Formats: sequence, C-alpha cells, structure tokens
Amino acid sequence: MDDALDDDYAKAGFGGRLGIGERPALLIVDVCMAYLDPGSPLYAGVESALASNIRLVAAARASGVPVIFTRVAYGPGGADGGLFYRKVPALKAFLPGSPLGDFHPELTPVAGDVVVTKQYASAFFGSSLASTLNAMRVDTVFVTGFSTSGCVRATALDALQSGFVPFVVADACGDRDPRPHGANLFDLQAKYAEVVSEKIAIGLLSGRT
Amino acid sequence: MDDALDDDYAKAGFGGRLGIGERPALLIVDVCMAYLDPGSPLYAGVESALASNIRLVAAARASGVPVIFTRVAYGPGGADGGLFYRKVPALKAFLPGSPLGDFHPELTPVAGDVVVTKQYASAFFGSSLASTLNAMRVDTVFVTGFSTSGCVRATALDALQSGFVPFVVADACGDRDPRPHGANLFDLQAKYAEVVSEKIAIGLLSGRT
Amino acid sequence: MDDALDDDYAKAGFGGRLGIGERPALLIVDVCMAYLDPGSPLYAGVESALASNIRLVAAARASGVPVIFTRVAYGPGGADGGLFYRKVPALKAFLPGSPLGDFHPELTPVAGDVVVTKQYASAFFGSSLASTLNAMRVDTVFVTGFSTSGCVRATALDALQSGFVPFVVADACGDRDPRPHGANLFDLQAKYAEVVSEKIAIGLLSGRT
Amino acid sequence: MDDALDDDYAKAGFGGRLGIGERPALLIVDVCMAYLDPGSPLYAGVESALASNIRLVAAARASGVPVIFTRVAYGPGGADGGLFYRKVPALKAFLPGSPLGDFHPELTPVAGDVVVTKQYASAFFGSSLASTLNAMRVDTVFVTGFSTSGCVRATALDALQSGFVPFVVADACGDRDPRPHGANLFDLQAKYAEVVSEKIAIGLLSGRT
Repeated sequence: MDDALDDDYAKAGFGGRLGIGERPALLIVDVCMAYLDPGSPLYAGVESALASNIRLVAAARASGVPVIFTRVAYGPGGADGGLFYRKVPALKAFLPGSPLGDFHPELTPVAGDVVVTKQYASAFFGSSLASTLNAMRVDTVFVTGFSTSGCVRATALDALQSGFVPFVVADACGDRDPRPHGANLFDLQAKYAEVVSEKIAIGLLSGRT
Repeated sequence: MDDALDDDYAKAGFGGRLGIGERPALLIVDVCMAYLDPGSPLYAGVESALASNIRLVAAARASGVPVIFTRVAYGPGGADGGLFYRKVPALKAFLPGSPLGDFHPELTPVAGDVVVTKQYASAFFGSSLASTLNAMRVDTVFVTGFSTSGCVRATALDALQSGFVPFVVADACGDRDPRPHGANLFDLQAKYAEVVSEKIAIGLLSGRT
Repeated sequence: MDDALDDDYAKAGFGGRLGIGERPALLIVDVCMAYLDPGSPLYAGVESALASNIRLVAAARASGVPVIFTRVAYGPGGADGGLFYRKVPALKAFLPGSPLGDFHPELTPVAGDVVVTKQYASAFFGSSLASTLNAMRVDTVFVTGFSTSGCVRATALDALQSGFVPFVVADACGDRDPRPHGANLFDLQAKYAEVVSEKIAIGLLSGRT
Repeated sequence: MDDALDDDYAKAGFGGRLGIGERPALLIVDVCMAYLDPGSPLYAGVESALASNIRLVAAARASGVPVIFTRVAYGPGGADGGLFYRKVPALKAFLPGSPLGDFHPELTPVAGDVVVTKQYASAFFGSSLASTLNAMRVDTVFVTGFSTSGCVRATALDALQSGFVPFVVADACGDRDPRPHGANLFDLQAKYAEVVSEKIAIGLLSGRT
C-alpha cells in the first residue's frame, strides 16, 4: 500500500520468502464466463488477466507443468452451496444450465489437464484438490483467476495451509475494482504467498520437464 | 462376533449409545450399478440390501426426511482419484462413460434430493457433504450402501468424527462376502455408530415432518 | 470503501444477508499477548478491541452462550507450522516457552469454555473446531480477535464454508494498520459474513439461555 | 481370511500395489499407557507390538527417517472430543491429568520428532498432520500403533485418501482381540494400504539418508 506500511510489516516479522519447489502446477481458479461475459452481473472487465492466463497456460504446457482448472457448479436449488450460496446471490450463475459457468473458449481444459469442481471460495475446501496434488507430488501452485479478493485469496491461503507453496500471479488475477484487488495482493504477500508478475512466473515455469 | 467379545468390549468402555438428533437425513452411499449388475467385476449379490434401500427412501420421503445420494466419478485417467484409484483397479468402473457408475433405476435421485460426487471411500472426504449437512442443520445420518467394509464404514467414521450421529442400517448395507460385512458392523457398533435394522430405522425416521 | 463501490457490489449480487441461527457461540481468535504486549514485534495497539472482547465475553456468559478461545502453539522448531511458519517469521512468538502466546489476564478461559490450539490462520484449518461446534449443535459464530486481515478473516471464511453463520464483530477485531482492517471488513461483508458492531452483537447474544 | 476370498477380491479388482515413495516417515499412532498398563481398562496385551515399535524407531532414526508420534488429549469435560468421546466412554483415559495418555518410557519422542495431538480416531482428522507431512515433503507413512481396528485403520485410510502411501506394519499394530486385528488388516490390504511385516518395513526404511 505504501512504503511505510511495508517497512512496518517487515519489522513485525511478516513477508518472509518461500522458494519454488521441485514440482509446480498451474492452478487456474474460476476463469469462467461469469466474469468475462459483458452481460453477466459478475462481469469484471478482466480481459487483460484472461490474456495473461492464456500465455501462462502456453508456458506451462511447453514445460510439462500440470495445468489444473477449477470451476464452480451447484445442483438444482443450490443446497450444495450451503451458506456461501445464501450469502452471495450472484452465485446463481453457477446453477445447472447457466452458460456463465462455462470456461472461456480460449482458455479451456484439454486432455491431461485436471478439472476440479468446487462449491466454495477456496479450491481446496470441500474438494479433493489437495489429495490430487499430493498424489501428483506437486509441491508448488501458481494461482491465477477471479476474483483476487475471493477465490484467488481463499485458494492461496488454503494452498499455504495445506503445504503447497503458493505463487500468486498478479497479472493473471482480476477483480471488479482495483481497491480490493490491491488490498488482497498486499495481504497475500505479507502472510500467505509469493505475489509475482506474469514475467517472473513464466521464467520460473520454463525450462522444466 | 460372540458374546464373550461383546462383554470384553463393554467392560473396556466401548459401545456407548448415541441418540438420534432432531433432524436426520438418509445418506445412501454408492448404491450404483457397479455392485448390482451381475456382469460387473464388483457385483456383490446385494439385491436384498437394494430392496431395503428402496423401502428406506420411501419412508424418508413420507416423513420429509432429506435424502442424499453419493456416487463416485473420476475424470479421464483417474488423476483425481489419487492413490485410491491406484490401489483399487476396480475403480475404473467410475471413469467417464462407464454405465457402472449409474444409479439403479429403482433407486435414483429425484428433485429435492442432494447428490454428492466423491472420489474417495468416505463420502465426507474431499467433498462438501459436511458443509451441506450443516447448512441444512442435519445432525443425524442414516447410512446405507455398498460396501459395508469400504464406503459405508469410511462414511460412518467421518460422520461421527464430523459431529453427525451415524446410524448404520445393517439390512441396507452389503458386501461381497459376509465376513467383512459382519466384522465391520462389529467395529462400527463398538466405536463409531449405532448399527440398527431396517425396521428400527424406519421407526425412527417415521412420524417426522 | 465508498458508496459507489457498495452499489456496484450490490448490483452484482454480493452482500446478501445471513440471519442468526438458534445456537450461537462466541469465538475469540488469538487474543493473546503477542498483539497486546507493547514489547512484542506483533504489538498492534488494539486495546480498545481487547476491551470490546471483555464486554462480549461478559454478555455471552450472562446469556449462557458458549465461549471458545483459540490460541496458536507450535512444537520446538515449528515443523508443525509448515509453510505458514516459514512465511511469517513473527510466528516464532508461539514457540514453546514464549509468553507471547499467553492469553491476556483479563480475557482468559474459565471452566466450561473450549480452548482450541491451532497452527494456521484459520481456526478451523487443521483443528477439530468444526466437529466440536457440530457436537455442541452451534450454528452461528460471533468472531472476534487479531488480526482482522489474518486469523479473523481466515476463520470467518472457513466458518461460512463449513456451514456456521459468521458474525464478525468489528469493534472487537483489530489490526496493526487501519487500511487492512477496513479492506478486510469490506470483503467479509460482501462475500462471507455479517459484519456488526459490538452493540448489535451484544443485543443478538442477550436474552438467550 | 482365506485363499478363496483373496482370489475373489483379486478378480474383482482389489488389492493393487502401491510402491514406497522417495521420503517416508514413521507414524506411531497412540502408543500410550492406556493400552500398555495392565491396570487400564483399555489394556490390550500388546507388548510384542510395543517391542516392534521400539525396533522400528531405532531403524528409522538410524536412517534419518522422520518419526511422528500421535497422542490423544481432551480438554476438561471432553467437549473437544465431540461424538467420539460420547460413543466411547473409555476415552476418559485421555482427560487432563490421566497418566494413561502418557507415552511409554521406552517409546517416547525426542528432540526433532513431531508430536501430533489428536481428538479423533484418524491422526489426520481435525489435526494439521497432512500439512506437516506436506511441508516436510513426506510421501509415504509407515503406520503402527493401537488399535488396529481403531486409530490405525482410520489413520491409514486417511493417509491414502490424503495422498500419502500407507504401509501398515502388522507386527507393530495390536488390538485387544485377534479377530478385529485380522479383519482390519485384511480390509487395509485389499483397499487402502500395503500391510507388511516388521522385517520388510525395516528393510524399506534402511539405507536412506
């Protein structure tokens, strides 16, 4: 937020550094039409983050880094969305038959990718994602997606708590307003994750088999 | 197993009783064609348990008790099945396109039921079931399904651990051999659940709104 | 943050209302000397939030509302703190023998309170808190504590995800800087919780047995 | 149980093999005085399994394999034991001040070991064990302890579900009756774990740094 606050946090003992592990994955959280279709109530004007995700996927595939997509889906009525579904009426976008839950045609899973269906903000909560990552021996996740203040932060928090080093790629995350976007990247860097640019992320992902 | 063992366990302090709560649900675990189709490698000869489940569902619906079905499903290749998928080759039955993962035509969800898709033995593990039950204020689950020694026990254990009183309906559970079936009901009653007959279960479920 | 943003969020379908359930609990997260001792690197100047917590506990006890305290504790070396311990050097405050992990003398558990020892930001993560709340049939948690941007937000998020209605008591939460405090209350109200004043919280807690 | 059943299970597609990973740990579940003190109601006559654990710990330490101990502990009144505490009256052994929760003097943690305090049957449930293992990059756990039909099975199940290959060391597990011991080792080998002798386990653990 400003240099004085950064200093204050550093003196207090926040913002340590976590290094990349031996086996990263790219974890793309809820990059779906609900945030990309200008007619959607959740439309967030995040086209540049979409473009960044497309470049990140290309880099990951070129380096053999596993790519994992999450999406939100509820059963009819949303009972499986529990209190989250009741708190956020916008989640009706993810009921059966809504096209807003679809992936974007330029950023969609291919054979070999893993797709995780989730009901909550964190991609780890109420899903088998942590087990899948473990069984794949992944130790680091590059997290991108929508929204920074919602699913991205919740997912990066749970990645750290679960034992997977989270790198949050700022350019590939987006929110409907720059203030929550910035405030959440600040918290993430201070306490839970390594916030990096797309350029740094691509550098870290490349050159691997 | 025998009366002497029951006595021994009672003296040691196992086998306490848990009472039914105020809001039960019926939780039908993996009652699918894999166990019911005579051509399936997992066919278990559990037709009488299927019939018991059908009667239990009728009783639950008549009393307004929520009905929850679980099923197993994996993405192509089974990466989301992790180590469980590697340990049990029979789980190929739940890959995309396999009819063995279907519900039985006489025991299939209707509008208003909850369907939980799972990848592991326990219906609670890697799923949002506990959150759904909480949001519904369910406090007791009547567990049935296949197999007693597999998904039923794992689910009842996690129900107890998660804070939902598990009643396991013995007549509505089945296994491919009577020995694991019996051994697991013994452990469940001793440590984790109330094992009851269909008759008792229907009595407990009835008369509610 | 401002009225225009509130309007924008409301139109998008955020910020729905969750009502209080039938059985609330007061959940006091990490109100310990690390944040209250002026000599601590984590000292946050949150005396007024401490005073608010003291009043909330009195109100809860007067109304028979269960009180739950959380604290952070690590084994020697902090291996059980995993990546969180590596990311936040300040967490050394919670190693064995450090007085900074102690409760404040004016806000400390008494007989009948529940104490949850945790290693991560969320009081639900890696702890048996959700199971304890379920077994107590609690359906609503009033969350307070330090820091708003850390353990409070993470705990309220997981409360919602787990199926417990989270009320975050703004006056009883604190952070070392007002900006993260405010930004996180904004996100919480929009997506995960009901943010209320101490006065409203005491009104909701009172008059219960 | 018998060869015909083994054949039947093999044909059905159970009992696949999981190989040891690159970084194993020894996970000793609830080897405490409750099961070893002849005056305890839970005394199980498992001295030979204790001796096996002592040899396994020596082998693990000699090879630099991490050693993790679990123990059960409840707060006063056992509220944090939830429904498990109500179902199994014997768990009073783990209330504050009871010496039955202590480790055995010949099998007790030393500096560098990890100690996990748990409230439920599974060492993974309601604890941060999975996160700790992940942060240590452990991929395989050798599970031992008491009782085979209780905490050992529940822990091995959750190890598999969580993505850690479970090897259950039969000689180092014990139960108060040989029938549940045997029945649970059968289920474990069929569905969830690799059941091995102490000799094989020591061979696998040795020769590592």
